[in-house]
Amino acid sequence: MFMPTLENQGTEEQQKIYLEAAKRYEIIGCYAQTELGHGSNVRGLETTATYDVNTQEFIINSPTLTSSKWWIGGLGVAANHAMVMARLISNGKDFGPHPFIVQIRDLKTHEPLPGVTVGDIGPKFGFNTVDNGFIMFDNIRVPHIAMMARYSKIDKSTGDYIKPPNSKLAYGTMVFVRANIILESRYVLARAATVAIRYSSVRSQFVDDASPKKIQNSDGSSKIVETPVLDYVMQQYRLFPVIAQAYACHFTALEMHRMYYENQEKMAQGDFSYLADLHASSSGLKSLTTTLGSAGIEECRRACGGHGYSLFSGLGQFYQDTLPKVTWEGDNYILTQQTTRYLLKTFRSVAAGRVAEKDANFSASYMLEYLANPKARCPITQVSDLSNPEVLLAIFKYRAASMVAKAVYNIDVEQKTWNDMLVDIYRISRAHCQLVLVSNFIKAVYGPQAQQTNENRVLQKVAILFAISTMEQEMADFLTSGYVSPEQSLLVKDRSIQLLKELRPDVVALVDAFGFPDYLLQSALGAQDGDAYTRMTRAAELEPLNQKKVADGYEEYIKPFVHGGKDKWKIGKDGIARL
Amino acid sequence: MFMPTLENQGTEEQQKIYLEAAKRYEIIGCYAQTELGHGSNVRGLETTATYDVNTQEFIINSPTLTSSKWWIGGLGVAANHAMVMARLISNGKDFGPHPFIVQIRDLKTHEPLPGVTVGDIGPKFGFNTVDNGFIMFDNIRVPHIAMMARYSKIDKSTGDYIKPPNSKLAYGTMVFVRANIILESRYVLARAATVAIRYSSVRSQFVDDASPKKIQNSDGSSKIVETPVLDYVMQQYRLFPVIAQAYACHFTALEMHRMYYENQEKMAQGDFSYLADLHASSSGLKSLTTTLGSAGIEECRRACGGHGYSLFSGLGQFYQDTLPKVTWEGDNYILTQQTTRYLLKTFRSVAAGRVAEKDANFSASYMLEYLANPKARCPITQVSDLSNPEVLLAIFKYRAASMVAKAVYNIDVEQKTWNDMLVDIYRISRAHCQLVLVSNFIKAVYGPQAQQTNENRVLQKVAILFAISTMEQEMADFLTSGYVSPEQSLLVKDRSIQLLKELRPDVVALVDAFGFPDYLLQSALGAQDGDAYTRMTRAAELEPLNQKKVADGYEEYIKPFVHGGKDKWKIGKDGIARL
Repeated sequence: MFMPTLENQGTEEQQKIYLEAAKRYEIIGCYAQTELGHGSNVRGLETTATYDVNTQEFIINSPTLTSSKWWIGGLGVAANHAMVMARLISNGKDFGPHPFIVQIRDLKTHEPLPGVTVGDIGPKFGFNTVDNGFIMFDNIRVPHIAMMARYSKIDKSTGDYIKPPNSKLAYGTMVFVRANIILESRYVLARAATVAIRYSSVRSQFVDDASPKKIQNSDGSSKIVETPVLDYVMQQYRLFPVIAQAYACHFTALEMHRMYYENQEKMAQGDFSYLADLHASSSGLKSLTTTLGSAGIEECRRACGGHGYSLFSGLGQFYQDTLPKVTWEGDNYILTQQTTRYLLKTFRSVAAGRVAEKDANFSASYMLEYLANPKARCPITQVSDLSNPEVLLAIFKYRAASMVAKAVYNIDVEQKTWNDMLVDIYRISRAHCQLVLVSNFIKAVYGPQAQQTNENRVLQKVAILFAISTMEQEMADFLTSGYVSPEQSLLVKDRSIQLLKELRPDVVALVDAFGFPDYLLQSALGAQDGDAYTRMTRAAELEPLNQKKVADGYEEYIKPFVHGGKDKWKIGKDGIARL
Repeated sequence: MFMPTLENQGTEEQQKIYLEAAKRYEIIGCYAQTELGHGSNVRGLETTATYDVNTQEFIINSPTLTSSKWWIGGLGVAANHAMVMARLISNGKDFGPHPFIVQIRDLKTHEPLPGVTVGDIGPKFGFNTVDNGFIMFDNIRVPHIAMMARYSKIDKSTGDYIKPPNSKLAYGTMVFVRANIILESRYVLARAATVAIRYSSVRSQFVDDASPKKIQNSDGSSKIVETPVLDYVMQQYRLFPVIAQAYACHFTALEMHRMYYENQEKMAQGDFSYLADLHASSSGLKSLTTTLGSAGIEECRRACGGHGYSLFSGLGQFYQDTLPKVTWEGDNYILTQQTTRYLLKTFRSVAAGRVAEKDANFSASYMLEYLANPKARCPITQVSDLSNPEVLLAIFKYRAASMVAKAVYNIDVEQKTWNDMLVDIYRISRAHCQLVLVSNFIKAVYGPQAQQTNENRVLQKVAILFAISTMEQEMADFLTSGYVSPEQSLLVKDRSIQLLKELRPDVVALVDAFGFPDYLLQSALGAQDGDAYTRMTRAAELEPLNQKKVADGYEEYIKPFVHGGKDKWKIGKDGIARL
């Protein structure tokens, strides 16, 4: 974020001075936005940059303890410059947070500059190889050129503020960043599922009395052996949806990228009509897919039994390093407000007849469908109806639209406050984004561009599983909407168990298809050869603790107890050691 | 488990030799049951103890790689003896796993004994201060006295096996262990909630436009400040149920302890009638409450925003060390089969008219109620009906009973296999145990022994919140059962939001009442004085990295980049450093 800010918001002169040096690593920068007391609400930041028109300098100051910059990656040890977000104050007026480049450490000695208090914020749940730091400024002065001035600026001699041109282009960039986060969620889910599926196919526990597994002995006789845990329905029920989520994120991320480029072209021609829908979906999808991603790793880790807790499983550290995604780049709860605010606004337009069917985007169009028949009911009567992608899509559309309609009623008619609606707001965003995932998945594998191959036929089943398992998880919503009846919900359960069986023969191939090399999985349990137990043993053999016959510390800490102060153990005739 | 096994299954002679030395730390023991390839299924263990009648010794052997003992706490570095669970084989017959005490390291040198391969299993997700180890035996011989012989034994001269007397007493101990696990879950939830509630009451983010918070300035004017996050309904919705779960676990753990002692007395008089029900509930409750416990910590950690990820929050390490509970002492999925198997059996007896109302225990009695009126429907018509504990209890009873009834039908009539039913089996156990928690909570605060105090009136609200928030989470079950209608489910949502507001003034007191001293919370965010940001800063100041102005490694790794090989940074007239 240090270099992108220079690139996007720096003038040519600023880029020449700072960006080029940064590219050569002569300047080591960090991006200092978050404060000890201020995270999600950027407008609440307290650090100030007050322009002194006499000296033509900005005075950077941390007025309170809570204004200390905190969590700043690279700041604890390495950085010598920081891009500091500070409230711009000039001629007594506060113009809110703007970016300033500030040198923080001496370039010869690397010692903190006078007026700068800087350090590392200490150990974290993960990411401990990054030196997240804190910094406080005691009225330090930086030259006029420190303020990034491509858009907004301060007149050097008068201190007047020049506003930025109204630019929505930044939203386009956010869509791009979030499309990449969805792709990362695909990666996270795929990697965790690969480990758990492979290990579950070699790990055997218990004999399934109803259908015991037999193997042939060399003499032709057979013996009953324990069942691979992947054959247990509960294990399938926990793991197969994770595979389906990975594929769902894959297809939606591709679609978000495609739409991003389409939108960039439109915006270049002055057409901003795609932006709001795209931005709203991307916010909710960041929230939904990163929540799915971290939950998926942990589900896979637990499904590996005790060995999932060993770091050799490759899942523990991976979980810790993935986890910040649910909090940073927009907290997963806060972010859903953006999505739902847009959906409510769209509904009001659609309900007021201000959106023609031919102009309707994805969101408006499913709301139009709902409004055309708000008392529609789900048509399924038997389990096999739940293999029809159109039926499933209609279920997800009705649920999202009816939740939006209900919320609009609660706010506009019942006069409920936004705060009272926050739980519904979160759920609406989730419902909309699950619909987006289902819709893109179905389009990709059932649409006109889908290939008629065996591989695609398997992916069609995965798409149905994604829809069905998501329905099962969120069944309360579907039932509450009245569109799905209690009897139909039982059909969904049955279809779910059926699908697990149908997909069982293909799941190992489905994770192999992700193509993770062993060195990237870093997992004794999930390596491609399936030789989990040999790999666990080899990893243990390499442990530093195991390189000596007797561990360090024995003499000082354990021996005094064992010998009780004396050295008189004797082995008796019965083979037993006695003191 | 090393000493308890000696205490419970050792003869007096064995206790004299081993237990007394162990109590003096001359013997350092570990309990070696789990194998590399065998966890949950004890009957699948591969390690053998073959009796050699000629030498009157047992030969302990690890026949395969997967039979290596693994995860054994204390074995990696410290132990010199192990209590080894091994398949007893005598006169060619396999009698299944039995415990044998085996010396594994030399008592003078601490080196592994001949035939023993032993070491540490390496780093884990948590608990890294424990030396979990592995061990393999290459046909090592131990004397006849090594087999724990209070109940089952091998005749020294004939090798004949003497069976243990049929003892159900071990189940009583399991109930006791699990009652303690429920108490631990109470502790886990209470500790996490204390941190998150306290920090949320001092942490402010955003201005709530609908009801902005004002503070008085010293000059009498007032200014609008950010809102404490605890005032946001979403934050309440995430955190208050965790407090309710802590109290729910508290009351059920007390009740389980009471029932344990009552049952011990009954069993001493030869009456085993309480045992099965108690054991079934304790299995499911271990599963449910440890799942709630680890989910609760993580919910609280995320609700602390970015700082939740700092180890100074006290939640990250706590989560990691709590996590094994969902896997050990019976995996949380596997264990629910015991609970549901008992419930199905009870239902069959009740349905066949084999249980009279006066003889019915808790489980049989709610099934009788259900069978008396299987088409009953929930009577609530308005939000205030959901403050009636009896109504809530009836809802939980109907749901559990109807799920049991449906499963019995699926197995006995539809002939579904146990494997196909595993998902339902898990859900049934959860439904039953949630009912147990609701029932015990209501009994404690609404029952005849409840005190008519203000404190108890708050706890009554907490009990209702526990029931309502659990209902919301599991709404699909309630709707599918047909007992609760979609319209009624909307009343539940409304009541939920209402309750959060009603409890808001008391939540800080509700966590203070847990009485955690600061040193135990180990949390900069959750200390009693609420001075979270000062404590975060102080903790960072103590970091070793911050004790030097320039961190180690700068000269070797960073300076060469910054100086670009030369030492020529110059500060210009404009105040900017340039190379």
